[in-house]
Amino acid sequence: MPIENEITATSNSLVKETAKLAQKKYRTETGLFLVEGQKSVEEAFLQPEIEFINIFVLKEKAHKYPQIGNKIITNEAVLKKISTTQTAPEIVAVARQIKFKPEDIQSKNKIILLENIKDSGNLGTIIRTCCALDVEAIILAGETVDIYNPKTIRSAVGNMFKIPFLEVQSVEDAKKILPQHKFYATVVPQNGTKSIKDIKINEKSVILFGSEAFGLSENAIRICDENITIPISQNVESLNLSTAVTICVWELFK
Amino acid sequence: MPIENEITATSNSLVKETAKLAQKKYRTETGLFLVEGQKSVEEAFLQPEIEFINIFVLKEKAHKYPQIGNKIITNEAVLKKISTTQTAPEIVAVARQIKFKPEDIQSKNKIILLENIKDSGNLGTIIRTCCALDVEAIILAGETVDIYNPKTIRSAVGNMFKIPFLEVQSVEDAKKILPQHKFYATVVPQNGTKSIKDIKINEKSVILFGSEAFGLSENAIRICDENITIPISQNVESLNLSTAVTICVWELFK
Repeated sequence: MPIENEITATSNSLVKETAKLAQKKYRTETGLFLVEGQKSVEEAFLQPEIEFINIFVLKEKAHKYPQIGNKIITNEAVLKKISTTQTAPEIVAVARQIKFKPEDIQSKNKIILLENIKDSGNLGTIIRTCCALDVEAIILAGETVDIYNPKTIRSAVGNMFKIPFLEVQSVEDAKKILPQHKFYATVVPQNGTKSIKDIKINEKSVILFGSEAFGLSENAIRICDENITIPISQNVESLNLSTAVTICVWELFK
Repeated sequence: MPIENEITATSNSLVKETAKLAQKKYRTETGLFLVEGQKSVEEAFLQPEIEFINIFVLKEKAHKYPQIGNKIITNEAVLKKISTTQTAPEIVAVARQIKFKPEDIQSKNKIILLENIKDSGNLGTIIRTCCALDVEAIILAGETVDIYNPKTIRSAVGNMFKIPFLEVQSVEDAKKILPQHKFYATVVPQNGTKSIKDIKINEKSVILFGSEAFGLSENAIRICDENITIPISQNVESLNLSTAVTICVWELFK
């Protein structure tokens, strides 16, 4: 086992490289991402498929992590530099992104698909909810936020490594990968759309959700087998995306 | 109708006073609050009980608001100064806080109570969800975030004026105000706690939720008539507060 290093200078080249991972560009270039804070790091550490590259720990808190070998002992200034939170966490890890393949999700029955979603925090909350309510896979289609965004990982509160997720170019691509599944488009209430209270869902199902601002694309709705809607009070225009996902998953999958 | 004013200097005393409303201290002192952005202002304007003190509008967009008289015409610099968002909205209003009384909620059947909650964004999302799912009142107990926090108002997306809310010191006080209601404490799964799937709720009900970090206080749980829980996957520790509220309200009230 390598000896634990100590880094104290924010000008250190490894520190500077690590700090760049706050940006999507560098995460994509390197295939790495940041895991920040005790809870997220400990949960990630329990997942055998996650490969850790570096783990920076505050010197005074290093004793709290005996299970983690090969730590880099450091100070608050360095942790502040490499983390994306206002207050520096006591531990920050750099890990390799996991790339799931279509085969990893084809056998799953309960799947949700998010098209063009932009809010990193919302995505993290959705991941946490999906894990809690036994959703088996998440598909991200179109122009969505990067799932390895630090804010997504924080909002998922340690759950983002418990569920496979697949990025696809379009809903068509998802349909090609999952030809046996029935696709349900969630849309705003309108004539002829069935309430989620009134449908019985297929065993193999994908429920689709669009962006907060625009909903599902016309193309996505066209490809789906059925449109469904959440009945809400007439004087409210719409639900928060994560709220809509929660209700559909609870009512249809649980 | 008074003539519309124009203010262009960020050093103007009204501008400086308005900017202070970003802070809870000044909101409490003055009994005023900020409503930011087209959607929130328009929704607030539809509520007859809301008294507007000042409405600042970007000169170039003033024609969009013919229904609003007595506007203060202004520029982007002033709107940036008085608003709390990264990008300045085209309209910012100052309105008087509404103080609901116990009588305003005693006749309501479907009520939720939030104890010691700290996340302003979460509170706004909860308000939006409650309006959509026909909750009739919200009680805030203990040390909770200020409901007039600008982030709460933004996250409620124009819905925060559609539902009465009451602030009380403690859950005991809520119980005194609502002696006919049955109080349900939401807690983590444990022996003897009924799943929300297995209970039939009283007609007059208050469902209680605790803080994200600590859950309901022991005192609150003791006062409640029954403990209830949301069945979730064993490998997930807890749900986001707003997710928990969504599921309970959907399952029990809808």
